[in-house]
Amino acid sequence: MDDLLIYSGTANRPLAAAAAALLGVPLGNLDIIRFPDGEVSPLIHDSVRGRDVFVIQPTSPPVNDHLIELLLTLDALRRASARRVTAVIPYYGYSRQERKAKPREAISAKVVANCLAGAGADRVMLLDIHAPAMQGFFDIPVDALTAVSLLTHRLAELNLEDAIVVAPDTGRVKLAERFADALGLPLGLMNKRRIGGRVQVTHVVGEVRGRRPIVVDDIMAGGSLTSQLPALLEAGALPEITLVIIHPLLVSDAPRRLEQPFIRRVLATDSVLLPPERRPATLEIVSIAPLLAEAIRRTHEEASVSPLFQLE
Amino acid sequence: MDDLLIYSGTANRPLAAAAAALLGVPLGNLDIIRFPDGEVSPLIHDSVRGRDVFVIQPTSPPVNDHLIELLLTLDALRRASARRVTAVIPYYGYSRQERKAKPREAISAKVVANCLAGAGADRVMLLDIHAPAMQGFFDIPVDALTAVSLLTHRLAELNLEDAIVVAPDTGRVKLAERFADALGLPLGLMNKRRIGGRVQVTHVVGEVRGRRPIVVDDIMAGGSLTSQLPALLEAGALPEITLVIIHPLLVSDAPRRLEQPFIRRVLATDSVLLPPERRPATLEIVSIAPLLAEAIRRTHEEASVSPLFQLE
Amino acid sequence: MDDLLIYSGTANRPLAAAAAALLGVPLGNLDIIRFPDGEVSPLIHDSVRGRDVFVIQPTSPPVNDHLIELLLTLDALRRASARRVTAVIPYYGYSRQERKAKPREAISAKVVANCLAGAGADRVMLLDIHAPAMQGFFDIPVDALTAVSLLTHRLAELNLEDAIVVAPDTGRVKLAERFADALGLPLGLMNKRRIGGRVQVTHVVGEVRGRRPIVVDDIMAGGSLTSQLPALLEAGALPEITLVIIHPLLVSDAPRRLEQPFIRRVLATDSVLLPPERRPATLEIVSIAPLLAEAIRRTHEEASVSPLFQLE
Amino acid sequence: MDDLLIYSGTANRPLAAAAAALLGVPLGNLDIIRFPDGEVSPLIHDSVRGRDVFVIQPTSPPVNDHLIELLLTLDALRRASARRVTAVIPYYGYSRQERKAKPREAISAKVVANCLAGAGADRVMLLDIHAPAMQGFFDIPVDALTAVSLLTHRLAELNLEDAIVVAPDTGRVKLAERFADALGLPLGLMNKRRIGGRVQVTHVVGEVRGRRPIVVDDIMAGGSLTSQLPALLEAGALPEITLVIIHPLLVSDAPRRLEQPFIRRVLATDSVLLPPERRPATLEIVSIAPLLAEAIRRTHEEASVSPLFQLE
Amino acid sequence: MDDLLIYSGTANRPLAAAAAALLGVPLGNLDIIRFPDGEVSPLIHDSVRGRDVFVIQPTSPPVNDHLIELLLTLDALRRASARRVTAVIPYYGYSRQERKAKPREAISAKVVANCLAGAGADRVMLLDIHAPAMQGFFDIPVDALTAVSLLTHRLAELNLEDAIVVAPDTGRVKLAERFADALGLPLGLMNKRRIGGRVQVTHVVGEVRGRRPIVVDDIMAGGSLTSQLPALLEAGALPEITLVIIHPLLVSDAPRRLEQPFIRRVLATDSVLLPPERRPATLEIVSIAPLLAEAIRRTHEEASVSPLFQLE
Amino acid sequence: MDDLLIYSGTANRPLAAAAAALLGVPLGNLDIIRFPDGEVSPLIHDSVRGRDVFVIQPTSPPVNDHLIELLLTLDALRRASARRVTAVIPYYGYSRQERKAKPREAISAKVVANCLAGAGADRVMLLDIHAPAMQGFFDIPVDALTAVSLLTHRLAELNLEDAIVVAPDTGRVKLAERFADALGLPLGLMNKRRIGGRVQVTHVVGEVRGRRPIVVDDIMAGGSLTSQLPALLEAGALPEITLVIIHPLLVSDAPRRLEQPFIRRVLATDSVLLPPERRPATLEIVSIAPLLAEAIRRTHEEASVSPLFQLE
Repeated sequence: MDDLLIYSGTANRPLAAAAAALLGVPLGNLDIIRFPDGEVSPLIHDSVRGRDVFVIQPTSPPVNDHLIELLLTLDALRRASARRVTAVIPYYGYSRQERKAKPREAISAKVVANCLAGAGADRVMLLDIHAPAMQGFFDIPVDALTAVSLLTHRLAELNLEDAIVVAPDTGRVKLAERFADALGLPLGLMNKRRIGGRVQVTHVVGEVRGRRPIVVDDIMAGGSLTSQLPALLEAGALPEITLVIIHPLLVSDAPRRLEQPFIRRVLATDSVLLPPERRPATLEIVSIAPLLAEAIRRTHEEASVSPLFQLE
Repeated sequence: MDDLLIYSGTANRPLAAAAAALLGVPLGNLDIIRFPDGEVSPLIHDSVRGRDVFVIQPTSPPVNDHLIELLLTLDALRRASARRVTAVIPYYGYSRQERKAKPREAISAKVVANCLAGAGADRVMLLDIHAPAMQGFFDIPVDALTAVSLLTHRLAELNLEDAIVVAPDTGRVKLAERFADALGLPLGLMNKRRIGGRVQVTHVVGEVRGRRPIVVDDIMAGGSLTSQLPALLEAGALPEITLVIIHPLLVSDAPRRLEQPFIRRVLATDSVLLPPERRPATLEIVSIAPLLAEAIRRTHEEASVSPLFQLE
Repeated sequence: MDDLLIYSGTANRPLAAAAAALLGVPLGNLDIIRFPDGEVSPLIHDSVRGRDVFVIQPTSPPVNDHLIELLLTLDALRRASARRVTAVIPYYGYSRQERKAKPREAISAKVVANCLAGAGADRVMLLDIHAPAMQGFFDIPVDALTAVSLLTHRLAELNLEDAIVVAPDTGRVKLAERFADALGLPLGLMNKRRIGGRVQVTHVVGEVRGRRPIVVDDIMAGGSLTSQLPALLEAGALPEITLVIIHPLLVSDAPRRLEQPFIRRVLATDSVLLPPERRPATLEIVSIAPLLAEAIRRTHEEASVSPLFQLE
Repeated sequence: MDDLLIYSGTANRPLAAAAAALLGVPLGNLDIIRFPDGEVSPLIHDSVRGRDVFVIQPTSPPVNDHLIELLLTLDALRRASARRVTAVIPYYGYSRQERKAKPREAISAKVVANCLAGAGADRVMLLDIHAPAMQGFFDIPVDALTAVSLLTHRLAELNLEDAIVVAPDTGRVKLAERFADALGLPLGLMNKRRIGGRVQVTHVVGEVRGRRPIVVDDIMAGGSLTSQLPALLEAGALPEITLVIIHPLLVSDAPRRLEQPFIRRVLATDSVLLPPERRPATLEIVSIAPLLAEAIRRTHEEASVSPLFQLE
Repeated sequence: MDDLLIYSGTANRPLAAAAAALLGVPLGNLDIIRFPDGEVSPLIHDSVRGRDVFVIQPTSPPVNDHLIELLLTLDALRRASARRVTAVIPYYGYSRQERKAKPREAISAKVVANCLAGAGADRVMLLDIHAPAMQGFFDIPVDALTAVSLLTHRLAELNLEDAIVVAPDTGRVKLAERFADALGLPLGLMNKRRIGGRVQVTHVVGEVRGRRPIVVDDIMAGGSLTSQLPALLEAGALPEITLVIIHPLLVSDAPRRLEQPFIRRVLATDSVLLPPERRPATLEIVSIAPLLAEAIRRTHEEASVSPLFQLE
Repeated sequence: MDDLLIYSGTANRPLAAAAAALLGVPLGNLDIIRFPDGEVSPLIHDSVRGRDVFVIQPTSPPVNDHLIELLLTLDALRRASARRVTAVIPYYGYSRQERKAKPREAISAKVVANCLAGAGADRVMLLDIHAPAMQGFFDIPVDALTAVSLLTHRLAELNLEDAIVVAPDTGRVKLAERFADALGLPLGLMNKRRIGGRVQVTHVVGEVRGRRPIVVDDIMAGGSLTSQLPALLEAGALPEITLVIIHPLLVSDAPRRLEQPFIRRVLATDSVLLPPERRPATLEIVSIAPLLAEAIRRTHEEASVSPLFQLE
């Protein structure tokens, strides 16, 4: 592992440090200078010539700052003659803008992909991306990792009798199915429609009555998901809901909204760094550091990474 | 419209002719020479310099032949100095290989996208693509049209009381939802799992009992979907199933499998050319020629195409 | 001018509105949606097909937000089939990172250039860029405008007898020379060296004694320039300094630092939007709106723009 | 050779197996899945990370199927992080469409080249390409091998007294010259003109009277070449013609047309797989497996390949 | 034609002026500044915004100077916002390095093609290129013109009874065939082999005895072709040889070598500018100015150019 | 160092030989064939497969010849499968055309950069480029070396009391400052203006009276700089001027102009090969061979090169 180098941007240094520690290598010496006018400048203190470099940086909020910081770091590494540069992006900002949902929108996730490849990434490593087709936004190799087995493993340890996995909308049914399949549980679905200008849950599809719901989503930002949980209770579900969130952004009042009596627990990964004040009391974090460490180790040693892949 | 030119490859000449007729322009004079060794060569008999050219060619089976034919035609048009070349691909072959579902697979739909852009398409026009994120496979403009309103309009004319829209698996729930929303119908879902090496429907999610199912899929190739319909009947649905298929490939014994007593009708578009012998008795075709004609007219006149878009 | 469309991002709407008003066209209807997690999404309400579109957006602080916003808007316009898209960037963020000044730095200004071209800009319009060679960062046409004649015109109206143009360091001598030449004034230069870890003015080159200095810089961020002005007074200059700043970022305590007795006036353009609370009492703004309007009009009408160019 | 991997598509597995056997390595484990609708999907069962991979696939008929299969395999290998991918294409389909011979034709061989590079080939290995300039269709390294010395070596073993090498038309004179030079034989040429809508041999250039002709062509598809051989006999040549065909496609009734009394033998390589029923009785095959094996070995070991090159 | 602009580099101003005069437009105002150190710099005095620009510049000797001059002019035009830039290159330097004829050679003609496209040519117009496949070196449109009909037209006016068209080597047989076909003459060929380190004509293929040879070549540089003409006389040809050279570079002592008693005339085009002192007495020039003018006119008016094409 | 290969073009073979000798490796076996018509063709006699190749070639006059020679060599190396190709360009021709100084000029230095990358350079090594931002013309790694410390080291050995470093114009002030800082000397500047059509020194900025000037420029071509030196004497400087020229092109009568009584010495590097007849008597050359050798060694061994960098 003597030519392996792991750098962390400023977005999630504890995660990067944990992954590096598991690999027994120190984090590389990278400063992200921030000027009074908000411009950033990466300054790499190690020689990276001929090295196999990984940069760990989720593009979590403030997403634009973290993204530009990553792009400049990639450019600096390429110009500094790194042998291979892998952008490890456990949370991929703008991934929900991966298609045109309205006329004349951007496909922002593709803009990001183009910028990453243009700035010098030789390969990227992602985690549970919002739409699997996003792998095709790149022509460089993408290692699409998944935390689903980490999360279902933890769920299986909990008391889940009479549980049902519920997708909060039609877009998340496939994700919910992966959990239901792994746990051997039935599957439900909340159907939402726009009525009088507002989107609301019109009916719950599937047999939730008398069951403990496990509601699964990949990204939670402002927490609007919580407002549709009462519909589950109205449909007869038990008020002991487990929420599974892969990427817990938890901005604005999401932390508070997650502290409700019918929410028993919130299970999430540390793909995004949550400061203590944004962690609701119900939150339990499953670390992806071992997953990243293993994926980096295998990539560096040219061993198969596929056992860690997101395949849908 | 004096610099508009519409060409048809060999994949669906009736559709192209119908669209051109609606626009009041003759089809351009294009021969696809086929040599004894199977190589094809497009031969364009009109001068296309400075013209606004549209090539209509679904990449339906034989998919590789139709695709290469399209690529060569695009190259010929570019080299012949067309002002703008739009590839109109009502059915996009390889669209179900739009992500890696197994390790070390190709993302074939992206290979196709790269080839199309590389061969000289300035823009593409698609219809109800398998995954909306595929628009991001291109950096050139994509007009992603939809036939859903054409199809729901026709469904609304039929007697649909006590109907329910059913997605045949989790991957098609979003598509089913678009039909359910437009028709004001409830939504159901068939959940499949791999049991003992075979994938089978394990339970039907949603209230199908006593209802007439409208099962919705975007692409039907060999017709394996039909084998899971009995599960609906077992769950209490009425044996009067309407199948909605946007792209009816209907290869091998699919036509025969669609002629079963519990299948009342199969509604499909003509995005793919079906010879009479591959049309089941239950089939009713809704033509997309007016949709293509309108989209081509608007594109040519630089008018907004967005009312015709697939937005999910 | 019937196919001309001018959009403004959020960075400097008053400037864009003023330029559009001078051209007699309304600003296009563009919303920049900002989600709770900080992601932005441009939403264009007009059909832009076949239109000649200009987007006015200085990438001033918060630079990363303004830059990403611009990139996504360019992508949306390209995908919406605009005929030609010009990014009008009166202030180009990261332009001082246009070379490697330390080992293993990024050339951030080139990363930005690559992203702009990659996102769909057909051409860019810039104003008084930090280094003229930055035009070569692009392979698309660059219209490099200058506000120097606007500023020297205003300076000539003021009482400038016994004045001398002074460059605050060796990097700005060429810019200072353009002012000195236009005004027929002598030229001076402040020489700075690193002494004991701190950079300080070691001597003033040129005859400043008894003269009123006009100190010229292209960008002022935190206002550290003001700390070296006393060296001019020590060298005998009159305490009636005119500061000319093309791009007045004026972040942190720069506004306050500009309100000193020996600073008679600060002349700047409105390339960057300064809210009232960040405008020092000494500030006089020369608007570039007429310059942008004229450059846009000429570009749109395919007339020569070169009379407005920055040529060094 | 421990990181060498050789894969075969479906086009010529015996050739690939023979080359691999000569190198002492097993063929890699690659399945080409073929769906009912004709779509193919490569499935690679080995980890290819960091490996030096060669894919042997002539793009012989069905040319479009073999080409797409190759492109998808290249994409799969790139995305699976192979260190280097070489496409070994002993027969290059569409190579006779390497220029515009009529207005508004495609340059199909260039479309193929762009697709190959775009799909992820790092280098290509070709055999006796139709026009040497086709090497310039690529910017990646091309190893252009030749079977001419294998074939002339075999010809030299045969009784060739009173022989003459004859080019069937002006386009093949340079190829014929390479055989004539190597064998020390005189050179002849059949001149064809379009007379009354049909192309026919108008005269034979060179001294064929009383000689045994060796007619040389690089590609034979439908066998139309055979129809012009009687012109040789009319010009006095002995009815003991040897035909040398580098790439024997032998489609439609070519095999039968090669079994005529005045054709003594047909010498060809196995660049294209000929099933037993398409092999005329006169056919003798010279295998290129040793040539490919040697070229792969040298490439893998970074030894000079030039002794095996086609140089004209 | 009001937005048409024709520029000439320094390589062949008389040809450009003649073509422009035929079109009734003045040559654009372009200076090629040449600095003492040999660097050149194009200076365009007209506004070219939105104009349809043609640059006429054969890359004849000094080939490198003429090529760089052309590249810089293309870049200047692109950056100056020309609407479309066509590089008209009647003689394409380095076209005989269009393949690898020895190991580790460059494919220089492809390097040139890449540079042309990279410098901003939107299209190129060529004349009788050395190998037709070179069209595939470009992905932009190539108009491959031919002067063969101009030359055969002139030849038909001369007394050509008992003539035979002779190719000086196997590489030029296809070119010779085009002349023979157009003139209804028989075809001959000179076969050369390397004997004892020197290449010499070993035999003449075809019936030259008692005939007046028309020897055809596309490019003549140093005139080594003349040394093989005596072999024709030895084979019985009449000592009244007509030489047809499309691109008469005529460097070193070529002009003198063309003034021999058995050479009756040398027919050539003015694709390359020959100063009076390099014109042998036997030279007759057929101007291509009308051909270029017609091709430019048609291209500018978007009319078909194919009647002027080189098709082989 | 067993896979290191160093080639020299024809531009500065003594420098390449010196650098190779310092590294203990022989120069690679490269012939640059020059044909009678001026075309060049590189012929590489070694197998370069898998090798780490450096090509040393300043693009000094004749600049176009040296540049094309370099491009073709890069292409040959890439096609010959070198593992990595570094273009070592100690003097970069066209570097003073790195911006648009007049309307409708080319940015020639960018054209050169695009050609270099397009021809196959994996990285470039430059020396004291005219504008530091030119590094951003490349997206491949650039090692921007500097000879300033070699030159200041030599200057420090000379008797420099009462010296002052003088920039000949505002564009060279930053370069002059680097010398002044390193030597601890004051800084002066010659201010030039256009008066009556001629550019002349209007005043000398800084205290030159009684001092020995060290005038610093990066490139000297025709020697026009010498005509402005008398202005220094008029301003009171001692007539013992030291000229420091990094890249001494010394074309036309520059050598003679450097032999004037008030010029005590001219210090220059050997980045450009000066034949004896173009070396003025006052010239002293400091060789950069050790610098290049060290940079090549470090690059090859993947050690840090930054101690040798030009950082401004």
